[in-house]
Amino acid sequence: MNEDVDTLGGQEYTSSSAAISRYAYAPEFQNTTNYFVHELEAIGFDAWEDPVGNLIARNRPKGDPAFGVGSHHDSNRNGGKYDGTLGVIAALEICRLSTELNLDLPLQLMSFIEEEASGFGQGVLGSRIMTGQVSEDGLRNAFLAVDDGRTFWEHAEDAGHDPSRWRECKNALDGLAGWIELHIEQGLVLQDSQMHFGIVNAIVGVNWVDLVFHGRADHAGGTAMQNRADAGLAAAETIIELERIVNTQTVPTVGTAGVGQFLPGLNNVIPGEVELGLDIRSVDKTVYEEIIAHIIAFAERVGAAREVSVDSSIQILTEATVLSERVVGALEHAGNDSGYEFPFMHSGGGHDTQLVAPHVPSAMVFIPCKDGVSHSPDELADPADAAVAVEVMLNAIRRYMSDAN
Amino acid sequence: MNEDVDTLGGQEYTSSSAAISRYAYAPEFQNTTNYFVHELEAIGFDAWEDPVGNLIARNRPKGDPAFGVGSHHDSNRNGGKYDGTLGVIAALEICRLSTELNLDLPLQLMSFIEEEASGFGQGVLGSRIMTGQVSEDGLRNAFLAVDDGRTFWEHAEDAGHDPSRWRECKNALDGLAGWIELHIEQGLVLQDSQMHFGIVNAIVGVNWVDLVFHGRADHAGGTAMQNRADAGLAAAETIIELERIVNTQTVPTVGTAGVGQFLPGLNNVIPGEVELGLDIRSVDKTVYEEIIAHIIAFAERVGAAREVSVDSSIQILTEATVLSERVVGALEHAGNDSGYEFPFMHSGGGHDTQLVAPHVPSAMVFIPCKDGVSHSPDELADPADAAVAVEVMLNAIRRYMSDAN
Repeated sequence: MNEDVDTLGGQEYTSSSAAISRYAYAPEFQNTTNYFVHELEAIGFDAWEDPVGNLIARNRPKGDPAFGVGSHHDSNRNGGKYDGTLGVIAALEICRLSTELNLDLPLQLMSFIEEEASGFGQGVLGSRIMTGQVSEDGLRNAFLAVDDGRTFWEHAEDAGHDPSRWRECKNALDGLAGWIELHIEQGLVLQDSQMHFGIVNAIVGVNWVDLVFHGRADHAGGTAMQNRADAGLAAAETIIELERIVNTQTVPTVGTAGVGQFLPGLNNVIPGEVELGLDIRSVDKTVYEEIIAHIIAFAERVGAAREVSVDSSIQILTEATVLSERVVGALEHAGNDSGYEFPFMHSGGGHDTQLVAPHVPSAMVFIPCKDGVSHSPDELADPADAAVAVEVMLNAIRRYMSDAN
Repeated sequence: MNEDVDTLGGQEYTSSSAAISRYAYAPEFQNTTNYFVHELEAIGFDAWEDPVGNLIARNRPKGDPAFGVGSHHDSNRNGGKYDGTLGVIAALEICRLSTELNLDLPLQLMSFIEEEASGFGQGVLGSRIMTGQVSEDGLRNAFLAVDDGRTFWEHAEDAGHDPSRWRECKNALDGLAGWIELHIEQGLVLQDSQMHFGIVNAIVGVNWVDLVFHGRADHAGGTAMQNRADAGLAAAETIIELERIVNTQTVPTVGTAGVGQFLPGLNNVIPGEVELGLDIRSVDKTVYEEIIAHIIAFAERVGAAREVSVDSSIQILTEATVLSERVVGALEHAGNDSGYEFPFMHSGGGHDTQLVAPHVPSAMVFIPCKDGVSHSPDELADPADAAVAVEVMLNAIRRYMSDAN
């Protein structure tokens, strides 16, 4: 796998000399797809691109039972060599090992386009297209290239694809008995516990709550404390309450106030308006729904006490996903057999697996990345950890598929 | 006074059709100075401009004892008809009444340039020049016109003044036995208590404390709550502590977090840096010094608990000013004689009187302004309130000067 990582970190496979920059349907993205096609065909797999460019490969006829492995090989802007791509390389390695070891497991590799939203501002786009979580209007008209403003549709056609057949992408799910995606953790759990891999049994739901506090922008000098409608104080109380309520949860949950903007933004003017942007994630949908309702009600209540009104809007970006007990169980068996210690863990970020999971029994495997850094040229992971994870995944798939027969 | 207000709100006296915009040394500013000179000469006063354009008028020879009245007749950008100018009109009215009623009080009217900092970005500039609170380098080189970037010095010379003689401006303080400035309140105390005037016995000191909280801008999804260095939470705690500590004070004190800016400012990134801009004012220097020390120590302490470091800087804009007991006492007598109820109050904003007070026994009189609004074309005050205040001021000056003799 080391060699694959090195090759795909080279100049043919990125548009930047300082980082990995690889978005559908740029030449460096196509080169990367072609690399995987070549490697897969070399071990006897059929490999092809679906109507929008997702990479699919099988060692069984289309529609026959097979176990899915893969990830994505696009990058974020100014990204690293591991996020996504290492998961596809690991999947390729599983296909190679199954062949080399004469296991002949029924396998299907998938690599989705545009997980990172870097090309068209749309995250997990390939897996959304495959699972029908897009509209044709979006594909034809609304999803515009970040770099040149032309539509996704035009770019897909120019790259030789046939986006008008996008609904056929879902055929790749036919016969898929299970799915495992390997990915770098993008957090500190594995590094801190010095473990080579973790089994992911849930993916958080991601929600953004935007709050606008409307007070009165009076002069700081002339306005006594009791006569103020200070939007900043109501916002500050809300930020602290978000941390408090999140810390009372017993399932993995985080809450963040990442946006805070006081207006007009002068030392001597009481903030008349404050914008807060919250990010609330939990593996339990009930938990984040309760936190969202609580924090909006809290903001309105502390606001009202200060004559500050609050507008709120909620964006549900992804729903919480509980992964398959059967696939997780197969990984647990294989993990125990490996002799390595490993944790069960959740994913705090979104992944293509969230789109696959409602259709196919799914799980993920995380490996450590240095200091939790990702989406950066400084991103670093150890292919030796991926090798351990690949072995566990391979054995989990053997167990799972033999149980299924 | 009504007529004076209407006249000076007219087109010859402002560069804007929608608001009062009048900065030294623009034609509309000179027209306003000329109006006062004309009105003062009409009642037998000598009136002149000092070397930088401050307006001085007397009905006694230079250097002889006289009581000072006045304010400023420049405006802020997009200002109203009352802030500053009504105080000069009231001073003119005192001169007129003293003449008409044959009281022949020894009076000196002063109107200072650039109180509002609109011309050269320098507040209370005329009174600072008169009291030596500037450097020649500032006047010659550093104070640049907001509109064209040319120096204060050049503009003063172009307007026919002789800024090289700026040190002679202080001569206007010779013989000055006392000083009262009338100003609109720019707050709600008088409106809420339905009183026509208030006697100002202190002016707050104004301090700005800028805090920069440095945390770590980790991803909101991958970073557990206990692994964060969230600059936003430390900043929020500091904002709330500022309100708490200010509300425990027993003398008039306010504290405001007017600037709040989270960076990088994305919902899904933990704020790595937060800038807070605080404004802290009290009539008691000890109080604001203690609050400043407390809030910086608090920010550092809550920051340290979150692995967030804090940089702080303090700007002392003006020191707290306790006004003259004798002048305040004379106003109190006259106020009691007027039959109107009135409060003693402090000024939450800075005024030229802060510069005069260390040199001359001083006080201020506030009259209400509608809803506390100032620095706006919507600024509104009632000349009938000013008339009540003028009567009180006139009688206070009579008492004060006869006690002095």
